[in-house]
Amino acid sequence: MLRPSWSPPSRGRAPLPPPRRRGDLVNPVQPANAGIDTAGVAELLERGRTLAMPVLRAAVGRLAAPMDTVAAYHFGWIDAAGRPANADGGKAVRPALALLSAEAAGAPPEAGIPGAVAVELVHNFSLLHDDLMDGDEQRRHRDTVWKVHGPAQAILVGDALFALANEILLELGTVESALAARRLTAATRRLIDGQAQDISFEHRERVSVAECLEMEGNKTGALLACAVSIGAVLGGADTRTADALERYGNHLGLAFQAVDDLLGIWGDPEATGKQTWSDLRQRKKSLPVAAALEAGGPAARQLGELLATDAGRHAAGADEGLPTEDFDEAEFALRASLIEEAGGREWTVQESRRQHDAALAALDGVELPDAVRRQLVTLADFVVERRG
Amino acid sequence: MLRPSWSPPSRGRAPLPPPRRRGDLVNPVQPANAGIDTAGVAELLERGRTLAMPVLRAAVGRLAAPMDTVAAYHFGWIDAAGRPANADGGKAVRPALALLSAEAAGAPPEAGIPGAVAVELVHNFSLLHDDLMDGDEQRRHRDTVWKVHGPAQAILVGDALFALANEILLELGTVESALAARRLTAATRRLIDGQAQDISFEHRERVSVAECLEMEGNKTGALLACAVSIGAVLGGADTRTADALERYGNHLGLAFQAVDDLLGIWGDPEATGKQTWSDLRQRKKSLPVAAALEAGGPAARQLGELLATDAGRHAAGADEGLPTEDFDEAEFALRASLIEEAGGREWTVQESRRQHDAALAALDGVELPDAVRRQLVTLADFVVERRG
Repeated sequence: MLRPSWSPPSRGRAPLPPPRRRGDLVNPVQPANAGIDTAGVAELLERGRTLAMPVLRAAVGRLAAPMDTVAAYHFGWIDAAGRPANADGGKAVRPALALLSAEAAGAPPEAGIPGAVAVELVHNFSLLHDDLMDGDEQRRHRDTVWKVHGPAQAILVGDALFALANEILLELGTVESALAARRLTAATRRLIDGQAQDISFEHRERVSVAECLEMEGNKTGALLACAVSIGAVLGGADTRTADALERYGNHLGLAFQAVDDLLGIWGDPEATGKQTWSDLRQRKKSLPVAAALEAGGPAARQLGELLATDAGRHAAGADEGLPTEDFDEAEFALRASLIEEAGGREWTVQESRRQHDAALAALDGVELPDAVRRQLVTLADFVVERRG
Repeated sequence: MLRPSWSPPSRGRAPLPPPRRRGDLVNPVQPANAGIDTAGVAELLERGRTLAMPVLRAAVGRLAAPMDTVAAYHFGWIDAAGRPANADGGKAVRPALALLSAEAAGAPPEAGIPGAVAVELVHNFSLLHDDLMDGDEQRRHRDTVWKVHGPAQAILVGDALFALANEILLELGTVESALAARRLTAATRRLIDGQAQDISFEHRERVSVAECLEMEGNKTGALLACAVSIGAVLGGADTRTADALERYGNHLGLAFQAVDDLLGIWGDPEATGKQTWSDLRQRKKSLPVAAALEAGGPAARQLGELLATDAGRHAAGADEGLPTEDFDEAEFALRASLIEEAGGREWTVQESRRQHDAALAALDGVELPDAVRRQLVTLADFVVERRG
C-alpha cells in the first residue's frame, strides 16, 4: 500500500491575499485570545512527562554500552562527561498527546504509554540523524551528539532508538500493538520523506508554498498525527476514530509549524529562546518567505532579487558558520519588512488559523469523551496563540 | 523483554588446542568433502533472486526521489550517472533462506517473499550505515553510496530502507506478519549491537575469542537466523519450529563467519575477489588472530609483540589509506605463519565445524519436510567447505 489510510495534508490552499502595506497587520505573536486554559495545557504536558519518561528511560537503558550513554546524553539526562544532568528535554508534546489519545478511546491514559515512548524514540532518532545531516552543532543550547560523540555514534544510536521504538510496540504482542506499529512506520516514512525534501530545498533558490506545506506536513504533521492517534489505537479505538485523530494531528502539526515559521522571523527572542530573525539568518525557505515570493507585486520582486543575491554571496564564500553572519541587523529588518509588505506574514497567520479550524473540523462527527474533546480544542488554540 | 525468546549464541567454547608446528594442518580452503550438491545450492540462490528481487525492486520504487535513485545505485541496478546497470548485488543468501524457511513450515516458498524482502532491506540498511561509519569507500568493487551521493543520502536512504522493511511486513496485517516484524526487530537490534562492538574493537589492541564470537554472532548470525526463520513464521510455523530454525541460522552464521575469517587471511584472491592477506592488511581482529593470541606460547607472544608494534606504527602516522600499506608481503606472511603456529588457524577450522554441527543439531527433534532438511544440511556443508 503506497498511501497511508488517512488523508495526506491537503496540497490545495487558499488564494494568496493581495499585498498589504506595512503596519497594517495585527501582531500574531500577541495572543488574540486571552481565555486559553494554559494551566490545563501545562498540566497535560506535565502528566505526559511524569507517566512516560520513566518508561522511556527504562527503554533506553536496554541499549548496550556505549549506546545507552550516548542516548542518555542526547536526552539531557547526563552531560558530556557522563555526570547526571537535568537539561531541557523539550516540551514533550508528543507523549502528552499519546496519553490523551488513549483517553479519546475511553481507555486509561496509561494504555497510551508504549505509544508515547515509541513516538518519542522515533522523534529522537530523527533529531540525531537530522542534526548530523544538517551539520547542526547545537540543540537546546547543548552540543549535538555527533559533535560530542562523533558521527558514527550519532548514526548508530539513532538506528538503535528507531529499532527500540518498534520493539516497545511489537513486544506487547497484541493486535492493537501491531496496528500501532504500522501507523508509526507510516509516520516514520513520512518523516524521512520530509527530511529528504528539506535537504533538497537547500540546493534550490525558490520553494513553492505547496512544496513548503508538503515538507512541513511530513516533518511536523506526520509524527504529531501519529502521537495523537497511537494511544487510541492501543486503547482499542476503531479505524474511523483513529483516522479522525490522525487528521486532527496532521492539521495541528501544520498550524504549529506555521506559527513556528512566524516566530522564526518575528518572534521575541526572550520567549522563543532563539536569536532575532533566526530563520532569516539561516536563509530558511519557510512559509512566510514562500508565500511572499508567490504573491507577486513590487515587494515580492525586490525580496526575490535580494534573496538571489544572498544565495550568490553564500555560494561565493562564507560556507562556514551561519550563511548570513556578515549581515547587519538592518539587512534582516529589510527582508522581514518586504516579506510582510508582500503579504507573506498575513498569509501565514491566516494559514495557521485555517489549519487550526481544519484540525477541529476533523473531530466533527467522531464520538469522544467531552473532557478529551475540550482538551484537544484547548491544545489547538494554544498552538496558534503561543508566543514561544 | 531484554532477551529475545531464542537462545543467544553460546559464549562457551572448546578449549584452545596446544600450539602446533607449521605445515601440520590440512588446508581448510581445500574442500574436504567433494560430495556437496553445489548445483542444488546454486539453484536455491537463483530461486531466491528470481522470486524476491522483483518484489524488492517494487518496494524500493516506493521511496520518494531522490532516495529511490540512491537506493537503486546501492543495489547495483543503476550506475553513478543513473544509467541502468547490472552490478554484482551479492549472493542473496538471505532471500534464498527465507523462501526455504517458508517451505520448512509446509507453506509454498512464495509465502516467504515479504520476509525475504524485509530481511534484504535491513541487510542493506546496515551496509549503507556501516560503510559510512567505517569510512569504507568501496563495496563489491563499486564506490559506496556516501562516496557517490554524500553522507546525508547514505544516512537518509539507510533509514528509509529500515522503515520500508517494517512496512512490508506490517502492511500484511496478519498475526504472523506482526510476529515476523517482532523477530526482525530483535535481529536488527542485535545487528546494531554487533556494529557497536565492532567499532569499539577498533580502538583496542586485543579482543578475546569470546568477544569476537559475540560480535560475529550479532553482525552475521542474527540476520541469517532471522532469514531462515521468518518465512516459517509467515507460513504459520509454531514457535518451537521457528526458534529451532533461528538457532540453526545463528550457528550457520557463526560457521560462515569463521570460514570468512580463514579466507580473509589464507583465501585464494582468485576465489574470494579480495587481496591476499586481506584481513591482515586491515588489521582486523578476526577469530584466528584472537584464538592465536589467547593460546599462549612463543608464537603467540611474538605475534602479540608484532601486532602491538603495528598498532604503534599505525597510530604514529599512516592514518590515511590502509593501515598497513607500507608493509611488504614478507611481513604479512610472517604474521600469518605465527597465527598458524600458535594454533589460531586450526582452532578456527575446528570452530567452523563445531558451529556446523551445532546448526544441524538445532534441527534435531523438529519436524521438517525431508527435502527442506536435506537442503538445510547441504547449505551448512557448503558454508564450511566454500573457498570464496
